[in-house]
Amino acid sequence: MIIEIIEKKKNGLTLTKEELAFAFEGYLKGDIPDYQMSSFLMAICLKGLTDEEIFCLTDLFLKSGEILDWSSLEGVKVDKHSTGGVGDKTTLVLAPLVASCHVPVIKMSGRGLGHTGGTIDKLESIPGYRTDLSEEEIKKQVEQIGVVVTGQTKDLVPMDKKVYALRDVTGTVESLGLIATSIMSKKLASGADKILIDIKVGKGALIKNQEDANFLSGITKRIGDHYGREVQTVLSDMNVLGRTIGNSLEVIEAIDVLKGKEQSEFSKLCIDLASSMVSMAKGTDLATSKQEVMNALLSGKALSKFLELVKAQGGEIGKLSISEKVFEIKSEKEGIVRHIDALKMAKYSMNLGAGRKKEGDKIDPEVGIYLEKLVDDPVHIGDTLGRVYYHNVLPEEDIASYFTIE
Amino acid sequence: MIIEIIEKKKNGLTLTKEELAFAFEGYLKGDIPDYQMSSFLMAICLKGLTDEEIFCLTDLFLKSGEILDWSSLEGVKVDKHSTGGVGDKTTLVLAPLVASCHVPVIKMSGRGLGHTGGTIDKLESIPGYRTDLSEEEIKKQVEQIGVVVTGQTKDLVPMDKKVYALRDVTGTVESLGLIATSIMSKKLASGADKILIDIKVGKGALIKNQEDANFLSGITKRIGDHYGREVQTVLSDMNVLGRTIGNSLEVIEAIDVLKGKEQSEFSKLCIDLASSMVSMAKGTDLATSKQEVMNALLSGKALSKFLELVKAQGGEIGKLSISEKVFEIKSEKEGIVRHIDALKMAKYSMNLGAGRKKEGDKIDPEVGIYLEKLVDDPVHIGDTLGRVYYHNVLPEEDIASYFTIE
Repeated sequence: MIIEIIEKKKNGLTLTKEELAFAFEGYLKGDIPDYQMSSFLMAICLKGLTDEEIFCLTDLFLKSGEILDWSSLEGVKVDKHSTGGVGDKTTLVLAPLVASCHVPVIKMSGRGLGHTGGTIDKLESIPGYRTDLSEEEIKKQVEQIGVVVTGQTKDLVPMDKKVYALRDVTGTVESLGLIATSIMSKKLASGADKILIDIKVGKGALIKNQEDANFLSGITKRIGDHYGREVQTVLSDMNVLGRTIGNSLEVIEAIDVLKGKEQSEFSKLCIDLASSMVSMAKGTDLATSKQEVMNALLSGKALSKFLELVKAQGGEIGKLSISEKVFEIKSEKEGIVRHIDALKMAKYSMNLGAGRKKEGDKIDPEVGIYLEKLVDDPVHIGDTLGRVYYHNVLPEEDIASYFTIE
Repeated sequence: MIIEIIEKKKNGLTLTKEELAFAFEGYLKGDIPDYQMSSFLMAICLKGLTDEEIFCLTDLFLKSGEILDWSSLEGVKVDKHSTGGVGDKTTLVLAPLVASCHVPVIKMSGRGLGHTGGTIDKLESIPGYRTDLSEEEIKKQVEQIGVVVTGQTKDLVPMDKKVYALRDVTGTVESLGLIATSIMSKKLASGADKILIDIKVGKGALIKNQEDANFLSGITKRIGDHYGREVQTVLSDMNVLGRTIGNSLEVIEAIDVLKGKEQSEFSKLCIDLASSMVSMAKGTDLATSKQEVMNALLSGKALSKFLELVKAQGGEIGKLSISEKVFEIKSEKEGIVRHIDALKMAKYSMNLGAGRKKEGDKIDPEVGIYLEKLVDDPVHIGDTLGRVYYHNVLPEEDIASYFTIE
């Protein structure tokens, strides 16, 4: 039976709901072994999925675990998802920023599995910050201060976890249908009323080009329609990573952005995403919500909300620290920074200890990279391009070469 | 490393010798798990292999185990391979027929893994027939009577065994490149000087159409060139299965063909294949070798050689038996037999006990199907289409419906 299903997809045919359920539910139960699921996943990657198949699969994923329900809480809950970027600290900014515009934010984040820490790892660099809030604690905190950023409380979408772990080691991550299924099942299970998806596009990103980004945008919206949930998407450059990679460093950068001082591409992206979320939640137009977001930043309300959030979850922001060992990256060239290789930066910072090489690895919150120069900045010979905060020894790689200066 | 190799093939790129070695040698050693090899195999199925990749892979397969060498024996050794047909008993006919034309035949065959028994299973239906000859016994017997049909003496092409077992359960059997690699590595390892490949084409066969057959024909010849071994191919109809499916029944049919009496499509195929083998071994033209083959049949030399073979390997042909329980398949239609569904017949006969459902299953040599009517035969209502020899109970399926009569 499973071999016939695999061969049907291999031959480019459309699978029925029953066939998809047989394969994926069987896999989750352990009736279907990894080696059959992995050839099936490769056939899916290379032959694609129809909309109908994607809807079926999203439903199977969603119903494989628990589904959260925040309808007892007031207000429209908007959740945001980014399709994997390097040094993505947008949640650290967005959660308090949107909450400071009186839109409730319940954000359940994960740990980093790739080169850099996840949102939860970043927040845990603040000593004392709790990421294991119970559902009751979450509800209480949202009612009190309007914002929560914590780890997952329940076993949401176990099918995605099992399938993703296999995709990760079998060269089958890059399938737009499977990516859409994974994102949407998780967002639907987390109980969001509306969903904003930040699709990061670029070399080294999951989504390589505009065409794929448009497809993903379309299919996530169609899945949203299918469940009666509004989905909006924003396409952003994979290489907009702000000035920092590394956990404590990223928290510090988030604070800088929340102060409304930072004028980087990253801060602009945060403002755009926050404006979209506020606009979705309140039904106001984008210009109005952007004004509200700017006011929150410039008035100090956004930063206050962040500090309130950290305090509510037990964190002591004053105890945040970075390594005292610093290596300055000097430029040997003169010109304009044309490109910064985000993926190589991320691998470098993983080697510093800022990310996990394998599951269970301990993260060093104090190490990372600070970029003094960003894309389009002019550079002279001898200028500091950035700083590496490290413990022990520096990685061997020539980090200066990750800047393209012309 | 392996994920990059998988993704390279997924993206339709050509792999280097080193990359193929890393993947397949790693898999044979157990360093690379089934689930990675199976997504890799699916990518190969869907993206194909270049000639150069197929040569590399054949070499890796060939060198993964022992390689036989019969050069100390006189004469040109021609081996034949059929690409899987139902009820394929050609070896039972060809080995003695070709040997009776004074061409040495060393045939190492396997057991059946599909719906029907393999050549070794068929011969073992002759009580006493030994299929475990040592290499010394093989050489001695070839010197004495010019023919041997036995099981494999050594661990030939273990990589093919391991990879094929995985392909079989992951929907990745149908890849012309992998099929060519599998066939040619086995034939090269078995020490043949020249190789004849009988490509069976048709619905339900491994090779579905003329285009694929032509491709397989071309690539096996190019692999042959690469090793300096002559390869010839014959395309034959998948549905030419002779009159019988089932082990003892097929031995009896082989004897009938060797008597030169039978005038079926199957006997014609045997004559064609034998003529090609004799022509390849002796360097004579096809017309001359066909004449020699016909003489061997009509003079009784071919049958004598068969009986000599059976006796030499300990078999007592007089003790061959078939079940006494017989069910007659009656026609309810009038017309001409347009088609007989070979694959369904094979499954039916497996359910009778003539084949293995899983490895290790015991085969019942006495059961099977005898076809009274073949394609193009006229049929009247009530005519006997065929006979089912069974033990215990008959399968539920309506075997008469496997005949298309119009």
